[in-house]
Amino acid sequence: MTINKIAGSVTVSKGFKANGIHCGIRKNKTKKDLAVIISDVQANVAAVYTQNLIKGAPITITKKNIVNGVARAIICNSGNANTCNADGIEIAEKMCELVADATNIAKTDVVIASTGVIGQALDISVIEKGIPSLISGLNNTNGGTNAAEAIMTTDTVPKECAVSFELDGKLCHLGGIAKGVGMINPNMATLLVFLTTDVAISSSLLQNAISDDVKGTFNMVSVDGDTSTNDMLVILANGLAENNLITTTDSNYAIFCKALNIVTEDLCRKIAFDGEGATKLIQCDVINAKDLVSARKAAKSVISSALLKSALNASDANWGRVLCALGYSGATLNPEKIDVSFESQNGTILVCKNGYGVDFDENIATKILSATTVIVNINLNDGDFKASAWGCDLTEEYVRINGGYRT
Amino acid sequence: MTINKIAGSVTVSKGFKANGIHCGIRKNKTKKDLAVIISDVQANVAAVYTQNLIKGAPITITKKNIVNGVARAIICNSGNANTCNADGIEIAEKMCELVADATNIAKTDVVIASTGVIGQALDISVIEKGIPSLISGLNNTNGGTNAAEAIMTTDTVPKECAVSFELDGKLCHLGGIAKGVGMINPNMATLLVFLTTDVAISSSLLQNAISDDVKGTFNMVSVDGDTSTNDMLVILANGLAENNLITTTDSNYAIFCKALNIVTEDLCRKIAFDGEGATKLIQCDVINAKDLVSARKAAKSVISSALLKSALNASDANWGRVLCALGYSGATLNPEKIDVSFESQNGTILVCKNGYGVDFDENIATKILSATTVIVNINLNDGDFKASAWGCDLTEEYVRINGGYRT
Repeated sequence: MTINKIAGSVTVSKGFKANGIHCGIRKNKTKKDLAVIISDVQANVAAVYTQNLIKGAPITITKKNIVNGVARAIICNSGNANTCNADGIEIAEKMCELVADATNIAKTDVVIASTGVIGQALDISVIEKGIPSLISGLNNTNGGTNAAEAIMTTDTVPKECAVSFELDGKLCHLGGIAKGVGMINPNMATLLVFLTTDVAISSSLLQNAISDDVKGTFNMVSVDGDTSTNDMLVILANGLAENNLITTTDSNYAIFCKALNIVTEDLCRKIAFDGEGATKLIQCDVINAKDLVSARKAAKSVISSALLKSALNASDANWGRVLCALGYSGATLNPEKIDVSFESQNGTILVCKNGYGVDFDENIATKILSATTVIVNINLNDGDFKASAWGCDLTEEYVRINGGYRT
Repeated sequence: MTINKIAGSVTVSKGFKANGIHCGIRKNKTKKDLAVIISDVQANVAAVYTQNLIKGAPITITKKNIVNGVARAIICNSGNANTCNADGIEIAEKMCELVADATNIAKTDVVIASTGVIGQALDISVIEKGIPSLISGLNNTNGGTNAAEAIMTTDTVPKECAVSFELDGKLCHLGGIAKGVGMINPNMATLLVFLTTDVAISSSLLQNAISDDVKGTFNMVSVDGDTSTNDMLVILANGLAENNLITTTDSNYAIFCKALNIVTEDLCRKIAFDGEGATKLIQCDVINAKDLVSARKAAKSVISSALLKSALNASDANWGRVLCALGYSGATLNPEKIDVSFESQNGTILVCKNGYGVDFDENIATKILSATTVIVNINLNDGDFKASAWGCDLTEEYVRINGGYRT
C-alpha cells in the first residue's frame, strides 16, 4: 500500500470543482468570505458536528439535507456564524436555494456551513449578489485554494492537504481544506473541515471512517479550550475513481482510512500551528498508557494547559507543569512511573524520570524548546496504548486578537 | 443571627497567633516566604485537598498528621512546591519537626503546605535558620497579615477576611488567609486557604462544613483552568469561644456554615480579582437552572472561557461567547430560553433574550464592561437552582507572568 501526499486539496479528486470569492460579508475586501465545492455527480456524504448544545442554524439545515446519505455541494461563508439569530434557519435555507438555483442541484443536496461572529444578522443579499461569480469561477486548478482562503476567520494561512493511492488498481484521491483557529478544543467538530474523495464507499462506512478518525485527530487538537457552536467536518465521496464500492471493513477500507488519517492529521498540525497568536506547534506524544482513553486524556490535557503553553512560549523547560497537567487529566496513571522529555529538530532532553526531576542543562533545553515545533514525549510506563495531541503556545498576541475580534 | 465582617484574619479567634518572614527560599529579600499559624491549645482540624493525582509531598504528610482529627500548627513556605522531588517526603517531615522542636508541639500536630515551583530541591537549611525568628515573632496583631504575605507567589496583594458572630451567647470568630493566583481551577483545593476559628465544633462536622462549602466557593473560581498539585484548604477550630460543642447539623451549625461562607466567598472574590495579570473580576450569576449541578457547570464554564475572558479584557460585549460557553458546559439547558445581561456599577444591559441577540447600545455596554467588577447574569428559565462563579479577564500580562515564572 502506497499513499502519496500530493499538491492540492478538495479538487484533486475526479469530478470536483471549487471556488472562493469576496462577496461582502467581511468588510475587508481583500478577504474572501464565500466558498463552494461541487461534485459533478451525486456523492455519498458523512459528517460530524460540534457537541456544543448551542448549534448554528447551518448545522440544523445540513443535518436535514444529508439525512439521505447523499449530497453534491458545500456552501460556506466566513465573517458571520449565523448563530443565535432569530432568522437563522430561514437564511441558511435561502443560501442552499441560491446554490441550487445557480447549479441545477437539488437544494436538499447542499451542505451549508457558516463561521464568524455569533448573534449578528447575516445579510443574504450580499451572498445573493456574489453567487453568480462564485459559481462561474468553479474550477479544479486554484479553486481549492480559493475555497480554503474563503473559509478563513483569524487563520493566517489557508490549510490544504491531499493524497493519492490505489484501490483495485484504480487511482484514487482524497483531499481537504480546514479552518481554525480560536475556539478549537474538545469533541469534534470544533472547526471546519471539508474533505472530498473519488473513492466509491457507502455512506455508512464513510460515516464510520470519519467518526473513528476524529477521535485521534481533530478531537486531539486544542487552541484555547473553547468548543464552537458551528463547526463541522464533512466528506463527499463521489465514486468516480471506479474502485469496487467499499461496503465492509475490508482491506480497501483500511487503506481508505489510512489515507483519510494522513490528510486529517496533517490538517490538525496546520490548525494547531496556526492557533491564534501562536509562535510554535506543540505536539504531545503519550506512550505506554494503560488504555487508549487514558493516553488521549493525558496528551490532550498537556497541550491544553495554559501554564505549560505560556512556559513553552518562553522556551522554558517547566516540566513540573507537564506533570501537573497529567495529574488532573483524568487519565489512569502512576505518578512514580512517568518519564518526560522535550524534543525538537534541535535535539531531545530528558527532564523527568519516574516522576522526579533529573539534572539537565537548561541551555540545551532552551535551545530545544526554541524550535517552531516542539514535542513533549511522555512515557507512562503503565501499558501499551499511545496517543498524540496538537496545540500551540499561548502568547500575548492571542489576547490581543480575541479582545478585538468582534468590534 | 448577626454575622459581622471584622478586620484581620487568622488571629482574630481566641488563642491563635501567626507570623510570616523572609527566610531565604525566595531570592528577593523583600518577599516573605515562610508562614506559621499556631493555636494555644489543641484544635479540631479538617481539610480538603487538590484532586490532582500528582500531589506534593506536604499533602501526604498533612493527611497523615491530621488523620486523628486534631492539630495545633500550620507551617507553609512559598517559592518551592516541594513536589516531584525524590527527597520531598523527608523534607516535609523535617519541616514539621523543626516547628515541633521550636514550640513543644507534637510534630504530628503540624499541618504543612508548600507552594511554588515544582521539581526543584527545597533547601531545608534556610528554613531551619529561619525558624527561631519565625516562632519568636508570633503575635495576634500583624501576624495574620505577615502570614498572608508569606504564602503569596505571584499574588499582588495578601488576602484576608474575618467575621464575628454569637453562638449560645458566646462571641465567636472565624477568619482566614488565602493565596492564588495562577493554576486556579476546578475541584478544590486548587489554592492555599488557612482558616481558624474559636468555635467548638467536632472534627467530623468541621469536615462536613468545609466539604460542602468549597463546592459553591473555591471550586467555582477559575483563573486559567490548571489544577495545582499542592493546594489545600485547612481549618483549625480550637473551641476557646466556649460555645456548646457543635456535634449535629443544628441551628448553631447553620450559623457556623453561614459565617464560614461569608469568609470563603470573600476570599474567592479576592483570589479571582488578583488572577495573574487580571484587570477585572468577572462574576457569573446563573439563576433558574434545572438542577444545582447544571447551575454550577454553567457558571463555571462561562468564567473559564478564554475567548470570553479576552473579550471582557477589551470591554467587548461579545455575548455570543457566553452562549457558546453555556453550550459546551455540560449543563442541562434549553438554548431558546436563555437570557443574558451584563451588569456593573455602571448599569445593567440585556444583550440576549430567549437565546437570540437583542438590539443594544454598544457604547452603554462598553461603559458597563469597563468597570473593575463585571457580572454576567444568566437566566436559564428552566428551574429553581442558582450558582455563582468567579474569574478574571485574560490579559497579555498573564502570558508574560507565566512565561518567565520559573527561570
